[in-house]
Amino acid sequence: MLIVQKFGGTSVANPDRVFNVAGIITEKFKEGHDVIAVVSAQGDTTDELIEKAREINRDASRREMDMLLSAGEQISAALLAMAIEKLGYPVISLLGWQAGFNTNSAYGSARIKRINTERIRAELDKRKIVIVAGFQGINRHGDITTLGRGGSDTSAVGIAAALGADLCQIFTDVDGVYTADPRKVPTAFKLDEITYDEMLELATLGAQVLNNRSVELAKKYNIELEVLSSITKVPGTRVKEAVKVEKMLVKGVAKDTNVARVMIVGVPDKPGVAFQVFSRVAKAHINVDIILQSVGRDNTKDITFTVASDKGAESVAAIKDYVEKIGAKSLTYDTNVAKISIVGAGMETHEGVAARMFEALADAGINIQMISTSEIKISVLIDAADADRAVAAVHSAFFDVQNML
Amino acid sequence: MLIVQKFGGTSVANPDRVFNVAGIITEKFKEGHDVIAVVSAQGDTTDELIEKAREINRDASRREMDMLLSAGEQISAALLAMAIEKLGYPVISLLGWQAGFNTNSAYGSARIKRINTERIRAELDKRKIVIVAGFQGINRHGDITTLGRGGSDTSAVGIAAALGADLCQIFTDVDGVYTADPRKVPTAFKLDEITYDEMLELATLGAQVLNNRSVELAKKYNIELEVLSSITKVPGTRVKEAVKVEKMLVKGVAKDTNVARVMIVGVPDKPGVAFQVFSRVAKAHINVDIILQSVGRDNTKDITFTVASDKGAESVAAIKDYVEKIGAKSLTYDTNVAKISIVGAGMETHEGVAARMFEALADAGINIQMISTSEIKISVLIDAADADRAVAAVHSAFFDVQNML
Repeated sequence: MLIVQKFGGTSVANPDRVFNVAGIITEKFKEGHDVIAVVSAQGDTTDELIEKAREINRDASRREMDMLLSAGEQISAALLAMAIEKLGYPVISLLGWQAGFNTNSAYGSARIKRINTERIRAELDKRKIVIVAGFQGINRHGDITTLGRGGSDTSAVGIAAALGADLCQIFTDVDGVYTADPRKVPTAFKLDEITYDEMLELATLGAQVLNNRSVELAKKYNIELEVLSSITKVPGTRVKEAVKVEKMLVKGVAKDTNVARVMIVGVPDKPGVAFQVFSRVAKAHINVDIILQSVGRDNTKDITFTVASDKGAESVAAIKDYVEKIGAKSLTYDTNVAKISIVGAGMETHEGVAARMFEALADAGINIQMISTSEIKISVLIDAADADRAVAAVHSAFFDVQNML
Repeated sequence: MLIVQKFGGTSVANPDRVFNVAGIITEKFKEGHDVIAVVSAQGDTTDELIEKAREINRDASRREMDMLLSAGEQISAALLAMAIEKLGYPVISLLGWQAGFNTNSAYGSARIKRINTERIRAELDKRKIVIVAGFQGINRHGDITTLGRGGSDTSAVGIAAALGADLCQIFTDVDGVYTADPRKVPTAFKLDEITYDEMLELATLGAQVLNNRSVELAKKYNIELEVLSSITKVPGTRVKEAVKVEKMLVKGVAKDTNVARVMIVGVPDKPGVAFQVFSRVAKAHINVDIILQSVGRDNTKDITFTVASDKGAESVAAIKDYVEKIGAKSLTYDTNVAKISIVGAGMETHEGVAARMFEALADAGINIQMISTSEIKISVLIDAADADRAVAAVHSAFFDVQNML
């Protein structure tokens, strides 16, 4: 079997953990498998490098930031290779560009365009364990790029897809995908399996177990993922296309506080306004999540949308001139909100799921500000202060034994 | 003018120093020059990375060590570029492989084979300041190599040679080349100029101002070097082919304690013994410095030679079998020695220089164990404990005003 393993920063934070990871890798290798391990920067390295940059220039170019940050994975990849050498196994570490990761030039959030697998294949043919520095690639100018937050997951799934790997294991600091954050909801439990789409909704919604781009990639190339812990060594959650039929309609409850709500109140009710607003937001490279347009009074309407919390001010700046020109009443943003979502592939064929969620929130006295639904998820925007209580209430409504009967 | 500047690790050790260096670079750029700055890893970064490696594997492969260590210059190059961005000048940082440094595969002490200047030229043509990560290159396998101790000097002179630069400034923590170590000899003074050969002897002899490979390269391609301080901003010492005629016969006194003396006593006096000994040492990749062969008693001779202090044991191991086979009396090594040297191009045409040096040592009661001379230098091996006193005594003999009259 060809197995790709990915280890996050906490999994390699110190020498003991590096050897723990080296043990996991060599165990698979000993079983006769080809193993590629993608590794993130150690513990706080990335944050420390960002701090070093900030001390010098808070507006440093993204190109130089990528040059700087990619050193973090370079260090962890070399150290992990050294640990495997110490254990007596053949190994080689490769940087993103050496491993063939060709990306576009969007420094800081580059997209993989192509993975040239020649070098990796040659090393695997020599029966070497290959350590790949995650999170990084190279653009057509020969400059180093980084894949953005959670980029090492994307590196791992990308290489698994390019090589047609049999399994891609994502080792993280949790031992699988839970029905809710187990630190917040004591009754949350681990799922054995979940579909790509469900995982995608959970990832997008802030469950933060897996980077969503990596799940998209896995789905596209049908790479089976396993999310598991590098410490506990128990089976994790498998992410794949079809899963065993389960009774559960809802797979999980997620909370996302990385949200800003932008409100335009009193927009003249004429065609093209939404297009003008959102094309400006898109031009500023800001992703919009939920959009809500409501009829207002006096031939006006209100447009509300959500973006990542650090994009609130940028969004306002991007549309301010236009919004003033058309004579809207006000343009504000607010980061004091949270998005609570339930996800489950069975949801679309069952009535009453949304109602049960809204009821749970109402019983807990939590006001719903916005609602957004897809075939497999329902999201609500609420006050940030209510977020944890909301998750607990919704989780209880769907997963507590008395409610499942 | 095309100017290459090199900044050592202490010159970029913290944000203030990074901005100081950015100021030096942009000052030249403002004057209209093309500027390439080669930078070492910040302060103790390299030592910290070595320590990280040691915690994991004291016998890590050199290939992975180079992968690890090259991250240090990557970080400092990116930070320096960010500082220059902050000052508002166009800049780009390049890693060794991006800057075209092709080396052989001697990981840890690679030699530059070729510098492909295409990328650097393209960036200079765009009127950018180019920051190059020193100390590193790439071999024909596409793997990262490092140039060994003082490698950033070699990077700087190499790029200056490849581009035909008009001047290569080596910024360091001393403000030039002194007649002796000014921290040890208060009467030591700074030289305005020195020839490549003199500098080469001083570099080899442990003056440690400039890496000797970089001086060899500068001599070969006739690149004018200037050694100066990034802090004091006063003119430094120029290193070039012909220097102004000076009255001084001796340019400097150097001390080198990185010496081990290997002694083979009682070697049968027959042909080929020296060849057999030194070919074995060479095969072990050990550089021999001074060799002394003396006639012993009873048709035997003694062979003594010096190597770097950490190569003493390796040297003994390399020749042990042969030395036993020929029936020599003993084979030992000793690191408790130091080499004191005087260097000066005028020396060969003047009598009495050696005599004056030996007299100074004798007056100080210091025993000479070995002597080695070349056209422009005289070296003596003495007890390590006498080293500093020896430098002071010799310096005084040649440079104190009363002795120069």
